[in-house]
Amino acid sequence: MTVNHFSTIAAVATPPGKGGVAVIRISGTEAVNVAGRVFFPQSGKVLCEIRPRTQVFGNIIYNGEIIDDGLATVFSAPHSYTGENVVEISCHGGILVTATVLEAVLSSGAVPADAGEFTRRAFINGKLSLTSAEAIGNLIEAQSREQIRLNSIKSRNALSENIAHISDTLTSVLGDIYARIDYPDEELGDYTEEDARRVLCDAKENISALLKTYGTGKAISEGIETVICGKPNVGKSTLYNLLVGKDAAIVTDIKGTTRDILTEKLPLGRVMLRLSDTAGVRDSGEDVIEKIGIDRSLEKIRTSELILAVFDISNPLDKEDEKILKVIHECGGAKLAILNKVDTGKRSIKNFPKEMFLDVIELSAKEDDRSAVLKLSSVIDKHFTNENIVTGEDAVISSARQNASLKEALEYINSAIGGIDIGISLDAVSSDIERAVGAVSRLSGKSVSEEVVADIFSRFCVGK
Amino acid sequence: MTVNHFSTIAAVATPPGKGGVAVIRISGTEAVNVAGRVFFPQSGKVLCEIRPRTQVFGNIIYNGEIIDDGLATVFSAPHSYTGENVVEISCHGGILVTATVLEAVLSSGAVPADAGEFTRRAFINGKLSLTSAEAIGNLIEAQSREQIRLNSIKSRNALSENIAHISDTLTSVLGDIYARIDYPDEELGDYTEEDARRVLCDAKENISALLKTYGTGKAISEGIETVICGKPNVGKSTLYNLLVGKDAAIVTDIKGTTRDILTEKLPLGRVMLRLSDTAGVRDSGEDVIEKIGIDRSLEKIRTSELILAVFDISNPLDKEDEKILKVIHECGGAKLAILNKVDTGKRSIKNFPKEMFLDVIELSAKEDDRSAVLKLSSVIDKHFTNENIVTGEDAVISSARQNASLKEALEYINSAIGGIDIGISLDAVSSDIERAVGAVSRLSGKSVSEEVVADIFSRFCVGK
Repeated sequence: MTVNHFSTIAAVATPPGKGGVAVIRISGTEAVNVAGRVFFPQSGKVLCEIRPRTQVFGNIIYNGEIIDDGLATVFSAPHSYTGENVVEISCHGGILVTATVLEAVLSSGAVPADAGEFTRRAFINGKLSLTSAEAIGNLIEAQSREQIRLNSIKSRNALSENIAHISDTLTSVLGDIYARIDYPDEELGDYTEEDARRVLCDAKENISALLKTYGTGKAISEGIETVICGKPNVGKSTLYNLLVGKDAAIVTDIKGTTRDILTEKLPLGRVMLRLSDTAGVRDSGEDVIEKIGIDRSLEKIRTSELILAVFDISNPLDKEDEKILKVIHECGGAKLAILNKVDTGKRSIKNFPKEMFLDVIELSAKEDDRSAVLKLSSVIDKHFTNENIVTGEDAVISSARQNASLKEALEYINSAIGGIDIGISLDAVSSDIERAVGAVSRLSGKSVSEEVVADIFSRFCVGK
Repeated sequence: MTVNHFSTIAAVATPPGKGGVAVIRISGTEAVNVAGRVFFPQSGKVLCEIRPRTQVFGNIIYNGEIIDDGLATVFSAPHSYTGENVVEISCHGGILVTATVLEAVLSSGAVPADAGEFTRRAFINGKLSLTSAEAIGNLIEAQSREQIRLNSIKSRNALSENIAHISDTLTSVLGDIYARIDYPDEELGDYTEEDARRVLCDAKENISALLKTYGTGKAISEGIETVICGKPNVGKSTLYNLLVGKDAAIVTDIKGTTRDILTEKLPLGRVMLRLSDTAGVRDSGEDVIEKIGIDRSLEKIRTSELILAVFDISNPLDKEDEKILKVIHECGGAKLAILNKVDTGKRSIKNFPKEMFLDVIELSAKEDDRSAVLKLSSVIDKHFTNENIVTGEDAVISSARQNASLKEALEYINSAIGGIDIGISLDAVSSDIERAVGAVSRLSGKSVSEEVVADIFSRFCVGK
């Protein structure tokens, strides 16, 4: 359902289910009037007389009946989350009570809010940038402390300010060029190609710095596509369970136990792993199902960003191990070797091709070896994130959308600088700069298509 | 876990899960100090300087890191839900964010609240009576509008006031008697047996009136144990599904389809039905499983408060129907006859023993016959509730505990009145009156055992 931007919307802002309290949020020009038809302060005042931001106790009345008692708070525009008039009614958190209070509010003139509609209005009303809105959505979905940091207010403000600064810089160049084109007779002072070039290089440097944060942002936010591979029975599923922290994969001594590709998203160190366990790669003979599993494993290995290749340290490398090494040698992902089963006390692997791997980690997956997990995690962090980036403080981009917009802006700036360098007039390069400004504006949401906005907010929950 | 009454407690007050916002509630002497260690208003003020009941925006900091931004409200004792100092922090409603904010609060000096601990403290601090606390618990669990009404603030205050009035009345009699015993020389005026008797009769009348509300309160609150019975294939499961409003029971033309007793709690009219579908009662021959089902059905029919006996109107009553009629004739529950399958157009039942039943309702269960359901509902309401009781306004008792306490008080008052009537001195009957006061005090919670309090609050959710 598409909600008219001028309508007054309402939704339960707290999670669905049963709890001590629930909050019904109402936003829009008519919010105080709508809420005033259902919420009656005990003091006898009416809601519009209540001092903004002050919680007042009162009764919630629907069809002449008191259905609950609770607290209400008025936030007057523009000093509210959405920038509109907002009333929050806090009632008892029963499922039916909450639904009935919402029903009362809706029957008093509000319409049901879309998913993300409150934050969308905050964005439309200039209360936050599009990147901040994205960060709030991610914060609610956060599964790791690093994700919380990445999307914290300091981080999201730093990104918004950074982007605004780039936008201002580029706009100033355009302004200087256009002023001299439009008003050639005014005494506007000199503005040389060199001046423009210097400012463009500043912007370029800022954009490049932001682009460099994408790897870290993506590893923390989306996670790293990771595959555990190896020949049968080297302990892949045991390693998988060790990392996931539960018995997710069925472990037996029987070769070919794992057929389906199991996948879990889990935080490890700074990053998230989108970790897949795979079937052991071997000649499966007649077993058709296992063969399909192995084909899928090979495909998964080829498309992963990180390959955890598992070997049994207690036995020398054999033909099957060599085959695995050959397969992963041709893959683009970062590679980590896990020499498993150190608990056997035997170290029979000789001439291991260390040079193929970021690192070689010896461990016993079945012994819940935390120091080995820490080492693994630290190698992964080091490879996939930039330790100089302080999440929770620095501006970091983390979505493909942000990365694409900045890359596009960078290309146009490079093109403009290149043009200046080969003597093209500022007038002529200004169209490149305009396109760069356009790309940056899409990032902050200043000029972004309705589809992009709809896509971003559709990922929110109702009530946010 | 038992929480020290003097410790400062904290819990997530909103339902568990993901939403726009979550509320962390902190209560206790140290609430503002605890919250002040994690919540820092954007204005630069500290939390204890904030005007009570005013929502302020700020950052939530844990281990030196901003983990979220949100709103905080201080409620100073005794003007809070619990009667203690309370701070409510409203943060983004992500699962990990909320858990992390709670962790921050707990590591700043609060201890996790027990289930119902906030309301328990409100009760201990005299903010609400025990019956009101019970009503708040029921309100959160409410599954019907009538249950919401029954537990609304007006209703729960009416009950508290009513009980307080009874208690005051009885205490005044005791006061008048004791004063004359303890200070025989004072000029306290006459206080005759007749005076005491009149006041006791007043109290008796009030208690009797409250006791009369129990049937209605119980039918709305706990619901009526209801059984659908009949011979096989008369449409019991179809009726069950019609009432429950979904395909809960498997319906086929095969006799003996239903073996297990299915039970659902559903609102119907004013009341809740705890509705059970049963196996058709017949001679099941060799089928052991069906026989067990039929035995269970017979037991269920015998113990139900309401029996919905289903017959097929399109066929004359047969031996199996007669057996059903014989079985239910001996049962104590209220009986309603459902003559099903009117859609066949045939009315072949003659000489139906109407006199056994509250009413006889003809319907077609498979045609989603709403007017028949309404009629059924109205007959049930009429029998099980008192239409003069206005739920949402009147004092109504609804729990076995409340009923038992009032019955006990009534017995002692009757004994006291009986004593006066046979000439026993006021001095001697005062022990009966004391016991009546005791029973009423247990009801309001003024003097109630720790076990009863623990039992009542253990049914609450954490955060309430």
